[in-house]
This record gives sequence, structure tokens and C-alpha cells, in this order.
Amino acid sequence: MLRRKEFLEAQKKAMEYLENAHIVLTEEEKQNIEVVDFGFGDLANTGLEIVVYVNTERVCAKELVIFPHQTCAEHRHPDIEGRPGKEETFRCRWGKFYLYVPGEKTEKPGCVGPPGREEHCTVWHEIILNPGDQYTLPPDTLHWFQGGDEGAVVSEFSTRSTDDKDVFTDPGVQRETKVID
Amino acid sequence: MLRRKEFLEAQKKAMEYLENAHIVLTEEEKQNIEVVDFGFGDLANTGLEIVVYVNTERVCAKELVIFPHQTCAEHRHPDIEGRPGKEETFRCRWGKFYLYVPGEKTEKPGCVGPPGREEHCTVWHEIILNPGDQYTLPPDTLHWFQGGDEGAVVSEFSTRSTDDKDVFTDPGVQRETKVID
Repeated sequence: MLRRKEFLEAQKKAMEYLENAHIVLTEEEKQNIEVVDFGFGDLANTGLEIVVYVNTERVCAKELVIFPHQTCAEHRHPDIEGRPGKEETFRCRWGKFYLYVPGEKTEKPGCVGPPGREEHCTVWHEIILNPGDQYTLPPDTLHWFQGGDEGAVVSEFSTRSTDDKDVFTDPGVQRETKVID
Repeated sequence: MLRRKEFLEAQKKAMEYLENAHIVLTEEEKQNIEVVDFGFGDLANTGLEIVVYVNTERVCAKELVIFPHQTCAEHRHPDIEGRPGKEETFRCRWGKFYLYVPGEKTEKPGCVGPPGREEHCTVWHEIILNPGDQYTLPPDTLHWFQGGDEGAVVSEFSTRSTDDKDVFTDPGVQRETKVID
């Protein structure tokens, strides 16, 4: 859970990153930047900031902000009721983005997992995205990611987003962020 | 049809617009900017410039560049083999974007149709998008659009793009651009 002060500070910081990337948001979008703490209340190590542009039955587009060495917890998007899970393309707009997917373990990866929860990072094939680079992840594929030394702003183009259906490796994860006063 | 010189000039100009919008492209993407003349060889009035980021069976994302008062010819994305047609969201990143869709005719629209082909613009409900504004168009819905006085850069988030299946109002339209030396 997050204190309201932390939540608002993270929103403000995310907005600064989006300004670095020259991404124009409406006032309403700025007010609604989603701050995800995965239940750990430790945004410096684990978390993600999200602007959802559109999420219909068929298409979703978002901007993701990931602070320096902040980790988005490992997860996959499973098939749902016989329909293939979410397919997503990450396109880096600003900063450096470390994405980890199944495949040959990268010998000297640029990141370590979040302190105390490293064991829940189980895929170690590293994809590094700099601005203009992108990567398409098939449905139901384990992945986690982390911002580089300056963090990153990344566009996500995907099929419908159903966050509550995501399957996380770490049993301690809570996808819904609780904010307390 | 377009002369190679015109084609390359339009690519270069589109790149300048994308730079105005601070959109970072790879060298390969810059080389592959699509220039569409809709068969009229008159880019000043009718045309569109496109960067396709991704186009899978399920998801497509593009940047569109539309020069000042350049018109993208009226068309719709029909259902294909029982599957609903392309659904698309336009999000303005830079400049001003005039989109025309079915609905109440706007009394004093900001645009006129391309000279000599005005009759093929049949929907006149005007949506104006400034940077940060967006609009989601349902499948199989007639639409055309035009750049404002400075042109526009617009992100398009959609289901799979199958340009050859688009249905144009103007029977003179050819979707595939022919470039001659």
C-alpha cells in the first residue's frame, strides 16, 4: 500500500518523465496517471506508472513510465476462455528499457531483481530497448522489465488489457494499488 | 503515380514533421516511410505519409503524417469474412487534425475537400484533434481527414491493418502508390 503523498509524488515524477519524452497529455490524463506498487509499497524498487490512452474489447494503447531501476514484477498474460492472451509491443520513446523474456540467459545482465524478491525473476534473456527500438511479446509469455539508469518511457500497443487476469510469479504481488491517507 | 523525386521529398518532409513531434525512428524506419498518393500524383492536395511500427494478426500501430490541408481520401474498413473491420483510435501528437465522420453536418467546417474531388467527401461531422486529443472510430465507418494549417502528426492504434481491403468513396482512388523514375 502507498501513502497518498507517495502516490502523488510518483504521479508528478511520472509526468516529468513524460515531458522529457515530449508526450502531450490532457489535464484529465495527468490526473489519472496510474501508479502501481504491486502491493509492496516500495516504488523505488518495484512499481510502474501508466497512462492508458484506450482499452476497448480489441485494442489497448498505453504509455509506461518506469523509474531508474524500478522493476515491473514478472508476469504473463494467459489465454482467457479460449481466446489468446494479451499480445504486446513495447516501443521505447525515452531512456533505456531492460526487458527480460524466456530464452538463453544473458551472461551479464544489466539489472538485478528487486532486493529480497530476486527469486521471483525467473526469465533472464535480456532485450535492451533504446529510443526507437521495439519488441513484440507473444501471448502467455513470462516477462519482467526495469528502467535503466535514467528510467524509461515506453509505448505499449496491445490487444485488450485485463490486468486482473495477469499471472504473477511472485505470490506476494497484489495488482491493485491501495492508497491510504 | 509519383516521380521518385516527389516521393523522396515527401519522405524527407514527413521526417521533419516527425522530428517536430519529437518522435524517434530507427534509420530503417526513416527509409521506409510510406508515401500514399491515392493514385492522383497530387500530394499537395491528396495523400498521407505513414510509419508502420507493428502490424500483427491482432494489433497495429502507426504514426501518420498529414501535410497542411493534405486530405486522406474518404474510406471505411469493412468487416472481412465475418470478422469486424478495423477499429482505430487517432491520437494527435503535433499540429491540428481535422477528422470527418458520419453525424450531424458541421455548419462551418474547417476544411474543404480536395479540388475537383470534393463530391467524394460525403461525411461532414467534424472532429478537431489538437495535441493530446484522441478519437476512436468504430469498424466500417466512413471517414476522411485533413491536416490543419501546419499539418499534423497522429498516432493510430488499431486492430490489424489490411489496406487493400479498404473501401474508398472516390472510384478514382488507387491505394497502392506507383513510383516512377
